[in-house]
Amino acid sequence: MSVFHVELKKVVDDSYPIEVGFALEAGLIEDLKDGLVGNIRKFAVITDSIVKDLYAQNICNLLRQSGYETDLFVFEAGEKSKTRETKAMLEDQMLEKGYRRDCCIIAVGGGVVTDLAGFLAGTYGRGVPFINYATTLLAAADASVGGKTAVDTPLATNLIGLFYQPQKVYLDIATWKTLPKEQIASGMAETIKHACMASREFFDFLKENISDILSIDRKACEYVAEENCKIKYHVVEQDERESGLREILNLGHTVGRALETVSGYRLSHGEAVSVGMIAQMKLSHRLGYMTLEQIQEVSDLLAAAGLPVRIPDDIDRDALVRKLYTDKKVKNGVLRFVVQRGIGDVVEFEKGNFATPVAEETAREIIMEL
Amino acid sequence: MSVFHVELKKVVDDSYPIEVGFALEAGLIEDLKDGLVGNIRKFAVITDSIVKDLYAQNICNLLRQSGYETDLFVFEAGEKSKTRETKAMLEDQMLEKGYRRDCCIIAVGGGVVTDLAGFLAGTYGRGVPFINYATTLLAAADASVGGKTAVDTPLATNLIGLFYQPQKVYLDIATWKTLPKEQIASGMAETIKHACMASREFFDFLKENISDILSIDRKACEYVAEENCKIKYHVVEQDERESGLREILNLGHTVGRALETVSGYRLSHGEAVSVGMIAQMKLSHRLGYMTLEQIQEVSDLLAAAGLPVRIPDDIDRDALVRKLYTDKKVKNGVLRFVVQRGIGDVVEFEKGNFATPVAEETAREIIMEL
Repeated sequence: MSVFHVELKKVVDDSYPIEVGFALEAGLIEDLKDGLVGNIRKFAVITDSIVKDLYAQNICNLLRQSGYETDLFVFEAGEKSKTRETKAMLEDQMLEKGYRRDCCIIAVGGGVVTDLAGFLAGTYGRGVPFINYATTLLAAADASVGGKTAVDTPLATNLIGLFYQPQKVYLDIATWKTLPKEQIASGMAETIKHACMASREFFDFLKENISDILSIDRKACEYVAEENCKIKYHVVEQDERESGLREILNLGHTVGRALETVSGYRLSHGEAVSVGMIAQMKLSHRLGYMTLEQIQEVSDLLAAAGLPVRIPDDIDRDALVRKLYTDKKVKNGVLRFVVQRGIGDVVEFEKGNFATPVAEETAREIIMEL
Repeated sequence: MSVFHVELKKVVDDSYPIEVGFALEAGLIEDLKDGLVGNIRKFAVITDSIVKDLYAQNICNLLRQSGYETDLFVFEAGEKSKTRETKAMLEDQMLEKGYRRDCCIIAVGGGVVTDLAGFLAGTYGRGVPFINYATTLLAAADASVGGKTAVDTPLATNLIGLFYQPQKVYLDIATWKTLPKEQIASGMAETIKHACMASREFFDFLKENISDILSIDRKACEYVAEENCKIKYHVVEQDERESGLREILNLGHTVGRALETVSGYRLSHGEAVSVGMIAQMKLSHRLGYMTLEQIQEVSDLLAAAGLPVRIPDDIDRDALVRKLYTDKKVKNGVLRFVVQRGIGDVVEFEKGNFATPVAEETAREIIMEL
């Protein structure tokens, strides 16, 4: 018997820039010419059936005009496309077109596109560079920091995937103008969550500028994108592997995710999280961390952003309570919630622990009155 | 417009031990009790339909006897199972049994099992720990160092996958006793390749001990496993991303891989590589790097290991020449070969370049006379 040691200690630098601006297509091409991804000349542009005509085809054209080899790979828009089957279909199309290890993937779209294309990039030829051209507020709030990529399976959301970092992220505010209202609202739910958990100042900005933001005022929206990145980065930087601090990003998501599922996805993720934020704040109030006035303030902002603040009447509340137990924060069969402290902070119950056990009866009471 | 920088520079330690020995099942259990994978109590044992009854079921039983939660996940033996579909099937089975991020995957089997299970581990919950319990000489020679995991697709072999390192590798020599002769021969092809490219001393050991090795003499086989790991590690350590030095692992594979495909996989990978080694040596001789005596010496060892040393008569040699162009070393449409220098060394044509352009006519001549 003998033991042989494989030593693989090394310094890895996955740093990348996020550019926030208005119509960044030309800037992307300039960056490529300046060597953003080295000598690569071949670009697979991955997008969905909606974003294709809006932005992706144009990016493809610009790439071609600059002498790059490129093809557009399109899948049907919607969360239901975020599957292993769509990933395999795109891989096969890329292989058929001769894409090998010397290519770069450009994801053009919202969270579904960047999650799927990022995962694909991370496993194509055991990892090729990828660039994230994000066209939604939700992607700005959620998908552009953290390196999480994934697909859904029949039995689990986002469980099959990778941590894989892009070479650069573009948050193009101009593209938000073509977003449906519900998509903006969905993004605002995560944005307000970020403000609630980390910055009273950002919360006040959102309150004062909500109508500018909803009408996609350039300056207001750029600030929103930047603050979202900063707050999420601050959390992720301190906890890259989702052990401690990262749990606070789950604020409002315990009830939110369960509601999304129980509604049969009739409520969008953002709408469900909005209601989940209210549930979480009612719990925070019971535990003495929030006043009723503060709850009202957040609730007013959520409503102003076009988000629901109570559970629709036709939702089966008992099913909702049962569904809470599939939350990933559940430990030893006990529900756990992240809890807000006033506006702009969360409660750290003990060092590194940001979620507190909650009796089912308490959760049920809050849900019944919501 | 503004740019926000996400800084992600960090030290990553993916080091792991390889234990070479005889019947290591009990040692594996001891290692787990000693905290090899921390506090994890849940183990998904992945194996194929042949290895299941031979070794995997027993490992599952030992785990259960030690109080661990475990299930056996079995797929049909053979390279044709190394697909995205098999991976998805296993993922769904694991999800159904409640496996989440707090599990560890134990791969028990040869290269197909460890490639597939390693890839699955790398994307399950965005990465869970995995342990590689390798039961073939080929796995010892090839699959246990380098961190390469992958599946095949209709259009490409091993192109969809990850670099993902195990927590520990066990090379259990006792399991080689149940290997079919062709499997041992396949492993010997890669073993002899290692010796040819890196160690005259190891080559001499193989020559002198070939019958002991083929009858699975414990001491001789342990030495073979150790030397294989050492040589591959030496190469991989210097070139973790397959840019320069790693190309030498392709020795004999230019013609080998093409022959494997053109034969419709009637020739195993090892058998095809054996013939590819001969082709490569004939080229080395033409270029003045090997004598005919040295070629004879290697050829004799390959034959003694039960491997073919010429192209079967019914192979379409023109098709074989055409197939050479799908080799990944091809650059700008020109064939490139790794070339042996005597026995135990390869030619470095210029710094970091270990493959030389070869005219199709030369390759054709060699193939026609082989």
